[in-house]
Amino acid sequence: MPFDPYRRANPSVLDIAPYVPGKSLEEAIEESGRDDVIKLASNENPLGASPAAVEAISAALGGAHRYVESSARRVRGRFAAILGLTPDHLIAGNGSDALLLAAAMAFLDREDEVIVPEITFSMYEIVARTMGARVVRAAMDGMAIDIDAILSNVSAATKAVFLCNPNNPTGTLIDRRRFAELWDALPDDVLLIHDEAYADFADPALRPDTAALVRGGAANLLAVRTFSKSHGLAGVRFGFAYGDPRAIELMHRVRPPFDLSIVAQAAGLAAAGDEEFRRLTLQVNRDGKEQLAAGFDALGLTFTPTHTNFIMVRAGDRAPAVADALLRRGVVVRCWTRPAALASWLRITIGTAADNRLLLAALADALAG
Amino acid sequence: MPFDPYRRANPSVLDIAPYVPGKSLEEAIEESGRDDVIKLASNENPLGASPAAVEAISAALGGAHRYVESSARRVRGRFAAILGLTPDHLIAGNGSDALLLAAAMAFLDREDEVIVPEITFSMYEIVARTMGARVVRAAMDGMAIDIDAILSNVSAATKAVFLCNPNNPTGTLIDRRRFAELWDALPDDVLLIHDEAYADFADPALRPDTAALVRGGAANLLAVRTFSKSHGLAGVRFGFAYGDPRAIELMHRVRPPFDLSIVAQAAGLAAAGDEEFRRLTLQVNRDGKEQLAAGFDALGLTFTPTHTNFIMVRAGDRAPAVADALLRRGVVVRCWTRPAALASWLRITIGTAADNRLLLAALADALAG
Repeated sequence: MPFDPYRRANPSVLDIAPYVPGKSLEEAIEESGRDDVIKLASNENPLGASPAAVEAISAALGGAHRYVESSARRVRGRFAAILGLTPDHLIAGNGSDALLLAAAMAFLDREDEVIVPEITFSMYEIVARTMGARVVRAAMDGMAIDIDAILSNVSAATKAVFLCNPNNPTGTLIDRRRFAELWDALPDDVLLIHDEAYADFADPALRPDTAALVRGGAANLLAVRTFSKSHGLAGVRFGFAYGDPRAIELMHRVRPPFDLSIVAQAAGLAAAGDEEFRRLTLQVNRDGKEQLAAGFDALGLTFTPTHTNFIMVRAGDRAPAVADALLRRGVVVRCWTRPAALASWLRITIGTAADNRLLLAALADALAG
Repeated sequence: MPFDPYRRANPSVLDIAPYVPGKSLEEAIEESGRDDVIKLASNENPLGASPAAVEAISAALGGAHRYVESSARRVRGRFAAILGLTPDHLIAGNGSDALLLAAAMAFLDREDEVIVPEITFSMYEIVARTMGARVVRAAMDGMAIDIDAILSNVSAATKAVFLCNPNNPTGTLIDRRRFAELWDALPDDVLLIHDEAYADFADPALRPDTAALVRGGAANLLAVRTFSKSHGLAGVRFGFAYGDPRAIELMHRVRPPFDLSIVAQAAGLAAAGDEEFRRLTLQVNRDGKEQLAAGFDALGLTFTPTHTNFIMVRAGDRAPAVADALLRRGVVVRCWTRPAALASWLRITIGTAADNRLLLAALADALAG
């Protein structure tokens, strides 16, 4: 019988809907027919990349033909020191996506269930399904993640809970107190995968301190970080994760051995030391949050309180039309057709003061038009 | 019960021995105590990276903070044109490792068997086991892959065959005629994953033309390429694969959506057009192959005829001691403790004329010492 890829596929993969990314800048330019597009769709850093990281990449290019030291020991050593952990608690990878996948490969198979909030980053479902695990969706409390709904879905088959905190795309935070409630109530044999992609933008006094928990010996906690947003390295790919050294060792077994490029290692190390860029990024984000909140209020728009570098704005039934109108005016934002609860919202990345001004003007136009 | 990562692991992963890379340059410098180390251990390009690729990376750094266009459509379009295929036949990824993993995720689960030659690249076993597939090892014909041994291991459970051609680490080629025998005899419902990492170094008249087979509609063939060696991009990570569009579509579903960085996309596109570097790389490789063959002959050493950018040299029981002695003399080569059939060999990357001269002198010393 001739080879039918769908009949011969890993059956778990047949149920996977491919990840739908936001428009890339190149697509937005093409679709809008404009070359002055402002991209506020993918939560990229409006200041660009950490200049120290860019400089380090240039300096590393002399080694572009060399395989990277596979275990990323310098990177692991550096972040271990920053977090008060040992290098054995750390694994680095090609963006946090690669680490989410490595965690799924290391821990999940088709006997397992995982719990994923109804409205969150879509990669959790993709990596879990790839490994054959059943995905149980926990109801939201409006646009916020509901820890009671997560806990009520725990069963004997639950292997892991994916928690994006602050949450993408809603911007909400499970704060330290409520996180402690979840942590205390979660059975010890369930792995909590805590995606901290946006944690750098949250108030350090409010966000959970997962490094402290791992230092204290928490074995069923895996924290995942990325420099895509806070350090402007979305196009370079740099992520790391920390947790129990045994869990990390299992993830090392399954990750592609050279997946963190020489370029990414250099960039990640340099960005980690670029305090000036970090400070500026957080300042621009704080200022932009206020500017956009005031602008949305003036337009009479509902939006979620955000702990991230983006804001969810309610545009109702007109959301797709408003997004199209914004694109014609040269501003790209993110919208969704499903799940239904998301379809009336626009996710808008906080830009520079000038970006935000243009967005607000375009939005006023689009709503009027 | 407290979380025990090994008890809660994906059981398939417990059998995986982590990939053991060759020494990185940084480790070799540390262990040898020398800073003039010549690394001939990892089949890197002795000329460095394609200069056009390095230039393209620098030019791309202005977009380091942007998510890459996820489907790599420019890359896919470019290689489709080169190979006479359509973009739907193509997928790009973070090195060929990422594509081997994507193929395993898309096609393998624990009902499946895969066939892997006894002496070959170790990632095939790692990705297959990760997905729970059983790995059946096909006996070698000396240092060459034995297609009869592969075929005799095909069973009703066989989902895929991994074929590294030319083979790493033996350097041997299944030529076009013998490949046709394998291809004709292989059941249609078995996927042949043809890893062409070293194909650029083989005689185009001898190596199988997998693009022609895919153009002709071969549905159960997946060819995987990397620019790590021939284009000097080992540290940047750039690979692509081509096959039936349905198979490629399944791989797109499971790959991390932004895994090919902006840097790698720019480098891969530029390297593809860098004919001068390709020509020089092949010339240095041909000259070096003759130089090393003459040198090994003069030292009375057995070596395998190679179709790659490395040569396997037989050092017998003394292989590990010879490798250590070479490291003390500032030359890093690759050796193995297992499988047993490999333990008496050294794998030596073909370097520049100067590299090869130093290697031969150090080898003469080491064998005498």
